[in-house]
Amino acid sequence: MLSATCMQAPTTITTTGETKAAADACVASAGIVGGSGYTGALLAELLLKHPSVKLGAISSETLAGEQVQRHLPRLRTGLLFCSQTDLTGVDVAFLCTPHGDTAPIARKLLDDGVKVVDLSADFRLDAATYAEWYGEHPHPELLPGVYGLTELHREEVAQADLVANPGCYPTAALLALAPLKQIGLVDVIIDAKSGVSGAGKTPKPATHFCSVDSDLVAYGVASHRHFPEIAAGLAAVTDTPGYGSMPSAPGTAPAGGGAPSLTFIPHLVPLQRGISETIYVKPGTWPLPSQGDLLALYEEFYAGETFVEVCDAPPQLKDVVGTNYCRIFPYADARAGRIVVISVIDNLMKGASGQAVQNMNVMLGLPEHEGLV
Amino acid sequence: MLSATCMQAPTTITTTGETKAAADACVASAGIVGGSGYTGALLAELLLKHPSVKLGAISSETLAGEQVQRHLPRLRTGLLFCSQTDLTGVDVAFLCTPHGDTAPIARKLLDDGVKVVDLSADFRLDAATYAEWYGEHPHPELLPGVYGLTELHREEVAQADLVANPGCYPTAALLALAPLKQIGLVDVIIDAKSGVSGAGKTPKPATHFCSVDSDLVAYGVASHRHFPEIAAGLAAVTDTPGYGSMPSAPGTAPAGGGAPSLTFIPHLVPLQRGISETIYVKPGTWPLPSQGDLLALYEEFYAGETFVEVCDAPPQLKDVVGTNYCRIFPYADARAGRIVVISVIDNLMKGASGQAVQNMNVMLGLPEHEGLV
Amino acid sequence: MLSATCMQAPTTITTTGETKAAADACVASAGIVGGSGYTGALLAELLLKHPSVKLGAISSETLAGEQVQRHLPRLRTGLLFCSQTDLTGVDVAFLCTPHGDTAPIARKLLDDGVKVVDLSADFRLDAATYAEWYGEHPHPELLPGVYGLTELHREEVAQADLVANPGCYPTAALLALAPLKQIGLVDVIIDAKSGVSGAGKTPKPATHFCSVDSDLVAYGVASHRHFPEIAAGLAAVTDTPGYGSMPSAPGTAPAGGGAPSLTFIPHLVPLQRGISETIYVKPGTWPLPSQGDLLALYEEFYAGETFVEVCDAPPQLKDVVGTNYCRIFPYADARAGRIVVISVIDNLMKGASGQAVQNMNVMLGLPEHEGLV
Amino acid sequence: MLSATCMQAPTTITTTGETKAAADACVASAGIVGGSGYTGALLAELLLKHPSVKLGAISSETLAGEQVQRHLPRLRTGLLFCSQTDLTGVDVAFLCTPHGDTAPIARKLLDDGVKVVDLSADFRLDAATYAEWYGEHPHPELLPGVYGLTELHREEVAQADLVANPGCYPTAALLALAPLKQIGLVDVIIDAKSGVSGAGKTPKPATHFCSVDSDLVAYGVASHRHFPEIAAGLAAVTDTPGYGSMPSAPGTAPAGGGAPSLTFIPHLVPLQRGISETIYVKPGTWPLPSQGDLLALYEEFYAGETFVEVCDAPPQLKDVVGTNYCRIFPYADARAGRIVVISVIDNLMKGASGQAVQNMNVMLGLPEHEGLV
Repeated sequence: MLSATCMQAPTTITTTGETKAAADACVASAGIVGGSGYTGALLAELLLKHPSVKLGAISSETLAGEQVQRHLPRLRTGLLFCSQTDLTGVDVAFLCTPHGDTAPIARKLLDDGVKVVDLSADFRLDAATYAEWYGEHPHPELLPGVYGLTELHREEVAQADLVANPGCYPTAALLALAPLKQIGLVDVIIDAKSGVSGAGKTPKPATHFCSVDSDLVAYGVASHRHFPEIAAGLAAVTDTPGYGSMPSAPGTAPAGGGAPSLTFIPHLVPLQRGISETIYVKPGTWPLPSQGDLLALYEEFYAGETFVEVCDAPPQLKDVVGTNYCRIFPYADARAGRIVVISVIDNLMKGASGQAVQNMNVMLGLPEHEGLV
Repeated sequence: MLSATCMQAPTTITTTGETKAAADACVASAGIVGGSGYTGALLAELLLKHPSVKLGAISSETLAGEQVQRHLPRLRTGLLFCSQTDLTGVDVAFLCTPHGDTAPIARKLLDDGVKVVDLSADFRLDAATYAEWYGEHPHPELLPGVYGLTELHREEVAQADLVANPGCYPTAALLALAPLKQIGLVDVIIDAKSGVSGAGKTPKPATHFCSVDSDLVAYGVASHRHFPEIAAGLAAVTDTPGYGSMPSAPGTAPAGGGAPSLTFIPHLVPLQRGISETIYVKPGTWPLPSQGDLLALYEEFYAGETFVEVCDAPPQLKDVVGTNYCRIFPYADARAGRIVVISVIDNLMKGASGQAVQNMNVMLGLPEHEGLV
Repeated sequence: MLSATCMQAPTTITTTGETKAAADACVASAGIVGGSGYTGALLAELLLKHPSVKLGAISSETLAGEQVQRHLPRLRTGLLFCSQTDLTGVDVAFLCTPHGDTAPIARKLLDDGVKVVDLSADFRLDAATYAEWYGEHPHPELLPGVYGLTELHREEVAQADLVANPGCYPTAALLALAPLKQIGLVDVIIDAKSGVSGAGKTPKPATHFCSVDSDLVAYGVASHRHFPEIAAGLAAVTDTPGYGSMPSAPGTAPAGGGAPSLTFIPHLVPLQRGISETIYVKPGTWPLPSQGDLLALYEEFYAGETFVEVCDAPPQLKDVVGTNYCRIFPYADARAGRIVVISVIDNLMKGASGQAVQNMNVMLGLPEHEGLV
Repeated sequence: MLSATCMQAPTTITTTGETKAAADACVASAGIVGGSGYTGALLAELLLKHPSVKLGAISSETLAGEQVQRHLPRLRTGLLFCSQTDLTGVDVAFLCTPHGDTAPIARKLLDDGVKVVDLSADFRLDAATYAEWYGEHPHPELLPGVYGLTELHREEVAQADLVANPGCYPTAALLALAPLKQIGLVDVIIDAKSGVSGAGKTPKPATHFCSVDSDLVAYGVASHRHFPEIAAGLAAVTDTPGYGSMPSAPGTAPAGGGAPSLTFIPHLVPLQRGISETIYVKPGTWPLPSQGDLLALYEEFYAGETFVEVCDAPPQLKDVVGTNYCRIFPYADARAGRIVVISVIDNLMKGASGQAVQNMNVMLGLPEHEGLV
């Protein structure tokens, strides 16, 4: 659907420019490959307001040559969509193209000396796991990319030329679980609720307003593609060799001393943006910490972090939607002998474009929060 | 907010009456105590269409003497709200009053020979548990009422004068878990998502449109009042003496060979009606059944039931909203060694007013589905 | 998206059947052509509960041979989708196929002696107007069909073999305007707000949840296809020869003493079902009636009607959604010297499938409200 | 409902501070009186990000002494709510208190040399009109305040100590109508659709999620309090002495050569933020301009404006929600001989807090768009 077009000259571009200290203050130029979807459009919105980085180019194969503002009216810019092959002169590129398509684009940009933040799934898994879930990887020599869950991998991101921006579900899950490494994780159940933007912009029966409104449904129960990414992240958190095979007894860790057993059930809920995960954990040590000790453990783990906030009650989605924050509430369920962790993010921000900018900031040596608060 | 009033004489009342085979066909007259809330209004809507029972009276202390249709415009009836003390001559009464207020009303109606279906929490728990969660019970001599989860207690309901209509969350949970008795339940986690009507009609900050829309939040994490009701139901399902004390080791059953350990986390989601529960169960026997065997177990358990439908994929809320059906999908999660059961109902229908009518039908010897399909 | 399938034998079919006085009580068999969209599915739901008519067949070319319940899980029936050519033996057929496709199907069914209620636009306009908005009509010999706005054309409907079921916007508009014939209409502005189901089930960018939720937009401003239907209906109401040419002066009736000048602006609002129209009328006589006289005019006009309710305050959409009622509030705006009429319906019920059943009842000599209250 | 509280020290405050060029760069300190409602909270959010103005104080009589972030978790600030009497040392104050309460507060602040932007209705009307709609004005010596529809009254705002920030409906309406002054306005109908935040944060039956969701209703049909404000603005736009008495003939201007006749019908729609108005105008000159000429008229009128965008198709609400922009689409409806103008804003931004900051910028001699793009 073509949007209404503003008839006036885009006076606001200059205006927006003025909010940056000065044009020369921009230390880098960024490009977006695949700018017509949700994550690309949001990246453009963030970059247009970024004080130190300018939006140099935004590509779309289907819209090349057309005014960006005609299709994305919130972007008050005079830019035209370009082709991905015209993305020259940028210092850093964000890839918002589908998995499989992305790896060759990344290969070329890296060869041209462009730093890459990839928002697809192409560099998040090792070659074997990728093959199992997506098919043969076209550029295994680039695997594994640095996994850009910024708070957990900040130093590697700072050194990286290629960062695999995490998926939305894994971001919320792994930030919620990382502090528990100290007391061990035996068994993990992630009950996730996601807004519809996570399903992408392409119209489908499942994303029709009349399908989603006043409804709620679990999906991908047996095989959501974020499962292996969460499992791999959990293995990293627990220093275990990786997600194991079927457990030999109910509720125990898989044979072979591997990572925790894991169930991941996502649900589609009638809202546009946001992910809320309620995570049920059987800890590896006993007795269960008190609620006070558990909170203290989380506070200490995330002390000094701008974008992770530890809360003393269940957070609301609306407190993070439109922001790059993750809010986490850990709860010691003494009655049942387990830990429950509730974690909320905006799937398009901390779960995609916001974290991508956060990673770019780290890669460029800029303050991590620039353009995000 | 007073609703728009229809100016014409309510010609439609007669009309509705005509859809009943004949007025004389009505075998009983029903009354509703507390008719201005969601469950009372829906009961009235169901009874106005019921082929064998007529709506004799609907009370509201605050609205007594006013036209029902002025406040509940979907009810095309000439009835006036009465006072609860005017509820004479009815054969069966539905109590939609708050817990605590309800027990004395029930006492009086029973003394007058009126059968009672109570939608409050006043008769769902034993006296000790009631006292722990609500305070001293005013009429312990009436405890325990017959627990009206119709499919599980049909024969007791048929004999009862006082039926405790189950809560919405327990209804969805216990129907989902009952078939697992055969393979045992060691540990149960219920992640529930509910529409806003479950919070009642009284305006509160938490039910303001701007609080709920585009948001999602967990609540009652430590102490939702449906916890003891679910725990008691689970004890009944598992033939254990009741919900026990804190477990002595993580993820195990509580000491004393009691009922399964239980965690129950409800979430408020932006929709009006419907409850979806995703339930994670550690079974008591091993190995895990295959997916086919698990489905067969459920199908057999609910064979012949009108209102419980076993599904081969996650059900959508919208397939049950506005109906008295419960749809259940059991899933054998071989990777993690547990069973996941997804259960959906309309919280106001099978979770309240619909099941109340179903119980009334059973109590009166009518076909169980009358007025509900 | 394939829905979850109930695994049990559809015991509920019999059950539903039992709510009909008896199978023999059915006086007719009805078929639905094009049963996979919103209007077809709702027709099936209504017919399955209809006390005197049975659902004989439901066709879908793409789903022929598949279980209806697998695709429309709310329909608890054992029927399979058939091909439209298999629709033999039905007494009356509802056509839910796209305009243009529909006329030949109607031709054939009529030739076979089947009564037809057409929900497409194929028989609502005269041949010349049809050609202007849709192209050449394939069966002009069938034009004009009887226009099935039941309350205004009841007697013609009773005699008809082919009824053109009105569009949703025209239904709400013409019921609101018809009583004003007595005082004349010079100028009419219809500001309409519609839920998303009116746009059909096919996924489109404009019906994506993330497009519709939290948004509102006017569309079809210059040329919505319901414009000529409303204009034609308005000409009928005012006994004028038809919608005229451009007016010769601002705000006056078009030259030639024709029908009222007309502006129709529909808006898409974030809800599934329902149309609300606020209509601004410059009356043909003066002075303006008092509010009391205006209300009395409407009450008298619709006295004895089951499905039109005249209200003394703006009606809420939710009071008609899920029903076949139209609620109308007329308001004498003395300050500005005009009449404002607010009219609400469920676009899928009174605006489509409900009114189609109402017309069928009239065509078959059944009580008009059967299966609808 | 108390929100979840972040347990960590608010590291983000400093962070936010850093995004301002430097603390010394702040040229002024602003205070908010009545900070717990929607407009006050949004003002605080805008001021925390404003590059040249710092948020000095935020008052709430009920919350005085409590942490702002505990009640408004999106505001990552260490500020406590103060009492309104503690608002010393600020250079400019925003009043978000109820009408009637506000005038005395403004009186005192002005006496203390504080510039005031009032978001209530206390200074928008002349004394006589105020008395008619609200009762006697407590400080008529302050009337009339400068009417802060920035684009139309920029120069007076620049000189003012007291600015009456316009209501949300009048802002959208008057920006849409002002360019038509050149061709005259005889008759104006405003059909407005508003999100629920316009009704305020206090829970009421009409703002309960279950009342609003899936519903739509007209309200205030005869006497919405924004009517006199729109009428007064329309009189100013048309250089007429003010809104007149009842017209002497249908659809004509009121007797006495006064302002255009006016009908204003607001509707509540199920979304949180945003107002869309479709306005039907009978122009004062003839013939009707062509669509091209009409667009050109609007473009010229708003040339150089940052926050008003003229569009060539109906704008979507979502293109302005969360921004201070107003988007306007004028349409020459040649068929009916009138002009239709569609105007959309975010009621809390351009309709309240955003325009308040815009006015503050003008009053302080700052770039008008600072803190708003």
